[in-house]
Amino acid sequence: MTAHAPAIILSQPQMGENVGAAARAMKNFGLSELRLIAPKCGWPNDKAQMVASGAGDIIERTQVFQDTAAALAGFQLVLATTARDRDIVREILTPEAAAKRLRQAARDGIRTAILFGGERAGLTNEEMDLADAAITIPTAEFSSLNLGQAVLLLGYEWLKAADATPASRTRATIAKPASREELTGLFEHLERELDAAQFLFPPEKKDTMVRNIRAMLLRSHLSDQEVRTIRGMIVALVRNKYRGKA
Amino acid sequence: MTAHAPAIILSQPQMGENVGAAARAMKNFGLSELRLIAPKCGWPNDKAQMVASGAGDIIERTQVFQDTAAALAGFQLVLATTARDRDIVREILTPEAAAKRLRQAARDGIRTAILFGGERAGLTNEEMDLADAAITIPTAEFSSLNLGQAVLLLGYEWLKAADATPASRTRATIAKPASREELTGLFEHLERELDAAQFLFPPEKKDTMVRNIRAMLLRSHLSDQEVRTIRGMIVALVRNKYRGKA
Repeated sequence: MTAHAPAIILSQPQMGENVGAAARAMKNFGLSELRLIAPKCGWPNDKAQMVASGAGDIIERTQVFQDTAAALAGFQLVLATTARDRDIVREILTPEAAAKRLRQAARDGIRTAILFGGERAGLTNEEMDLADAAITIPTAEFSSLNLGQAVLLLGYEWLKAADATPASRTRATIAKPASREELTGLFEHLERELDAAQFLFPPEKKDTMVRNIRAMLLRSHLSDQEVRTIRGMIVALVRNKYRGKA
Repeated sequence: MTAHAPAIILSQPQMGENVGAAARAMKNFGLSELRLIAPKCGWPNDKAQMVASGAGDIIERTQVFQDTAAALAGFQLVLATTARDRDIVREILTPEAAAKRLRQAARDGIRTAILFGGERAGLTNEEMDLADAAITIPTAEFSSLNLGQAVLLLGYEWLKAADATPASRTRATIAKPASREELTGLFEHLERELDAAQFLFPPEKKDTMVRNIRAMLLRSHLSDQEVRTIRGMIVALVRNKYRGKA
């Protein structure tokens, strides 16, 4: 569902490759409406089409406008990217905060757009004045993001703002977590064999050693299959001992 | 201060342009150590130098290794990017969660690295097995991030995480995480003994078994002391075999 996703509007882009890269970045992160203002690269543009590759549909549906006011007509919330601080007192958002605001607007049925300046000069002051707020992408001292990269980072934050992927997950395979019983069985098996091999020595350190070994195994969140594998490993490692004795 | 920033390690990159773009993205977000594993694009590489433009110093200091284990030796936390889900049970992080973990590690004085696969094939299973956890960048259905873009997004999250204080810490370790070398030593020791005990059987299943065992051990985030303990356990379990024979 991208009906309320923000439109991406590029003002006076100079290189078709960058428009193509922007389209691809949009497609990566679920954006679909691309507009150009007075493109310096000429339009339609073969290089844009080529670089866009899998996002050719976005290029084909791209609308071209001759001035900024016309391109922005109809949008109710416009955020404009800028690399530099400007004189005007204006709200400046991080990409993350911008994405959250855009998501909220989408939920409220508001039409939104993100405005990007051309490769060399960025947006004019007059264009900035048409935006509700500015977005500045944080960088280290060295700051040379190109147009495609700026669209990529904004698109990424847009997707993230709705993304339900847990921060960390362990691939939920068919694997079933081991039960407490299975784990206890493993612990006792291992400790019995380590005891027989006189590894848990000296006696006064045995408890601490056992606790550390258990903690180490527990941290892996073993599956039932993995418990069987480890028990198999123990049997295999110890086995030859009895063979040797026979 | 980038002393503890993660190293960026590109395995078998095919295009110099992408290495250059990666270097620029690194510079944008305060990363400085770039390593290449068996670059297919040839090295040194003019296109990399050209695309890197302002980040030429990173290109000049780039170290080249012939195999992954050598490139990773000395790192204590290695995260590997992957676009696809794999069979092995492994922790998968979002870029944001990965960046937080890397920042925390940096504060703890731990050496970290992010591993990226080549343009076409990504990382091999064997390379994934050397990583502590995987990183997957969330995208819409269309997912065609190139190498430079992947480095850009990870670098961006690294910079963003700068002031993030984690809500909770897993464990207050005085423990030093095992280095890649120590882990490799453990893996090889264990696999040698399991092989001798004919546990890694039948031959056609050996690879999968080895991979599952490595993944299981990696999930514990073992300390150097724990690696020594496990190796001691292996020696103890196997030892009596020789005694028995004597």
